[in-house]
Amino acid sequence: MQRRKFLRTAVLGAGGVVSVSTIAAPAIAQSMPELKWRLASSFPKSLDTLYGAGEVFAKYIDDMTDHKFQVRVFAAGEIVPGLQVLDAVQNGTVEMGHSAGTYYVGKDPALAIDTALPFGTNARQQEAWIRWGGGRQLLNDLYKDYNVYNLPCGNTGAQMGGWFRKEIKGLDDLKGLKFRIAGIAGQVCNKLGAVAQQIAGGDIYPALEKGTIDAAEWVGPYDDQKLGFNKIAPYYYYPGWWEGGPQTTAMIGLNKWNELPKSYQAVIEAASAYAQAWMLSKYDAQNPKALRELVTGGTKLMPFPNSVMEAAFHASTELYAELSTKSPKFKKIYENWRPFRNEEILWFRVCEGTFDTFMARMSASDKL
Amino acid sequence: MQRRKFLRTAVLGAGGVVSVSTIAAPAIAQSMPELKWRLASSFPKSLDTLYGAGEVFAKYIDDMTDHKFQVRVFAAGEIVPGLQVLDAVQNGTVEMGHSAGTYYVGKDPALAIDTALPFGTNARQQEAWIRWGGGRQLLNDLYKDYNVYNLPCGNTGAQMGGWFRKEIKGLDDLKGLKFRIAGIAGQVCNKLGAVAQQIAGGDIYPALEKGTIDAAEWVGPYDDQKLGFNKIAPYYYYPGWWEGGPQTTAMIGLNKWNELPKSYQAVIEAASAYAQAWMLSKYDAQNPKALRELVTGGTKLMPFPNSVMEAAFHASTELYAELSTKSPKFKKIYENWRPFRNEEILWFRVCEGTFDTFMARMSASDKL
Repeated sequence: MQRRKFLRTAVLGAGGVVSVSTIAAPAIAQSMPELKWRLASSFPKSLDTLYGAGEVFAKYIDDMTDHKFQVRVFAAGEIVPGLQVLDAVQNGTVEMGHSAGTYYVGKDPALAIDTALPFGTNARQQEAWIRWGGGRQLLNDLYKDYNVYNLPCGNTGAQMGGWFRKEIKGLDDLKGLKFRIAGIAGQVCNKLGAVAQQIAGGDIYPALEKGTIDAAEWVGPYDDQKLGFNKIAPYYYYPGWWEGGPQTTAMIGLNKWNELPKSYQAVIEAASAYAQAWMLSKYDAQNPKALRELVTGGTKLMPFPNSVMEAAFHASTELYAELSTKSPKFKKIYENWRPFRNEEILWFRVCEGTFDTFMARMSASDKL
Repeated sequence: MQRRKFLRTAVLGAGGVVSVSTIAAPAIAQSMPELKWRLASSFPKSLDTLYGAGEVFAKYIDDMTDHKFQVRVFAAGEIVPGLQVLDAVQNGTVEMGHSAGTYYVGKDPALAIDTALPFGTNARQQEAWIRWGGGRQLLNDLYKDYNVYNLPCGNTGAQMGGWFRKEIKGLDDLKGLKFRIAGIAGQVCNKLGAVAQQIAGGDIYPALEKGTIDAAEWVGPYDDQKLGFNKIAPYYYYPGWWEGGPQTTAMIGLNKWNELPKSYQAVIEAASAYAQAWMLSKYDAQNPKALRELVTGGTKLMPFPNSVMEAAFHASTELYAELSTKSPKFKKIYENWRPFRNEEILWFRVCEGTFDTFMARMSASDKL
């Protein structure tokens, strides 16, 4: 039925999407039609890991179909601004996007759960929820409202807490602090007395340099070093409690997705899993060297004080209760995600946590 | 060049591998020939996650090629015994296998590093080494000696320490302990005075029940519950310090791999990444519930005493020095892997570890 619908679309012509050669090709080729799609990324080319995952995703689709299904990737700003990718997919400007749900919390706070909630899951726990805890279905029910089919497509791992011009000794140091931090996490910071600022990636450096803002978070050592924040803010805090395992996401026009032959749907699914592994492992491999260079260069690496961590944790839980009353969609997904997270953390305390902690202790005592 | 070589093979005929229809088909189909391969798994069907990853790997290859490239999966024992999969791929009995390098340490201890070394990397750190630290190249240089091309294809996450009939209060309790544990980890246990036993999966339960062995390790709560070890041994220890993130592996006959069109190589690469994500997330999602049920049913969950952990750590480091003098291949890979592991652990101490530890503390104080 789906195949038939697809072929009908092909014959009727879909403006450059299905090439003429497909129609003339023998039966064997019709299940693998020639397609040329465009993917809008939310990320600039300079961030080779975030942006690169979109390119790897596209390359695998191309390679696996012997170049019959080609996806051309456009960086943030080339077709649409980085924070309008969801809109561009929704209105059909592009067939695909590579972005993060959390950029669109203005539409609905529930979209943040596709990426990360403060004090949420780590990368593995989020993936377990997506694939086995009902997350995939719930998120696609949500994205359906935006005419989008959604797949997990990348993860940065736990992010750093960002760059501060002054030391943060306790909660008092957050009062009035102008902090570049977006979305739900910004709302948590506001509850603690900070003044959250939404500033696009390329504008952060001059704002921090001029003192328009006092602090800024981005991703982690590898990306932050590229953006040069270490030159203008001495204190580098950890962990980014708002993003314990933020996931990036592939967005596909829902009608486009439904028209694809099943083989191409499988190709996209596996390509996104490959891109996910590629991105997370690339960050894991590159961050150690970058952090070492930053510290050697004079960056002061500091953990957030426990008072800040605990106050932020309680403010987050409070915020989730508020968002649940405001957004039924947030409430529905949060109430599925929260107990799953809690069970994951209980299990990680036993096995992963004990192993990692022992290895950390051997590392700290220089025995590795 | 490769394409040409492949087509020549096709025309010359390769006994059932390339179907006659390929030869007669138009040019467009020759880049996606019809293939029927067999995959031998090292795992029994009852272990739906370990065995299942091989099936998911095969299913995606099939789906993505619109059923042109079909891979039929055979459980352990159906074509060859579970621990002879490498041999079966090497001698061409099957085109593919799904197994673990560590099963073949009798051939060379270096093969263990494809899976896990005691006190090694966790799942993410291993994947970072494979994809970005040189691991993939080093392992394929090693597998080349066995006429095999190798890809990462699954990970269980940190495993549990296994089931013990008596409590382990310290090193004295390991003396003479008959412990079912295989490979390199068994050699470490022998250094501590235990008597390591290699027993195939299906034979562990009766051996532990009769008292032929005193303890046995397998995987983790989800699999161990299926095998029923909780009925015959009360103590369940953690963590399995010998497998912090053991990886399962896809093995492909090297000639078969080289003959594949590039599109099919990309299909296999992405399908294995999908299977990897599928397996790890499935274990992460299923283990919490299984552990909860085991503990509710009376299983005594215990951490290994620190004296045991530290002695095992030092015995492992000692063993790696010995293996390095015996096997130049082990030495070569170990000397690349070890500093990579050390850098990963240093970085995980900063960001992932601090985040996970804080969340563990909130969990322990019932605040989640």
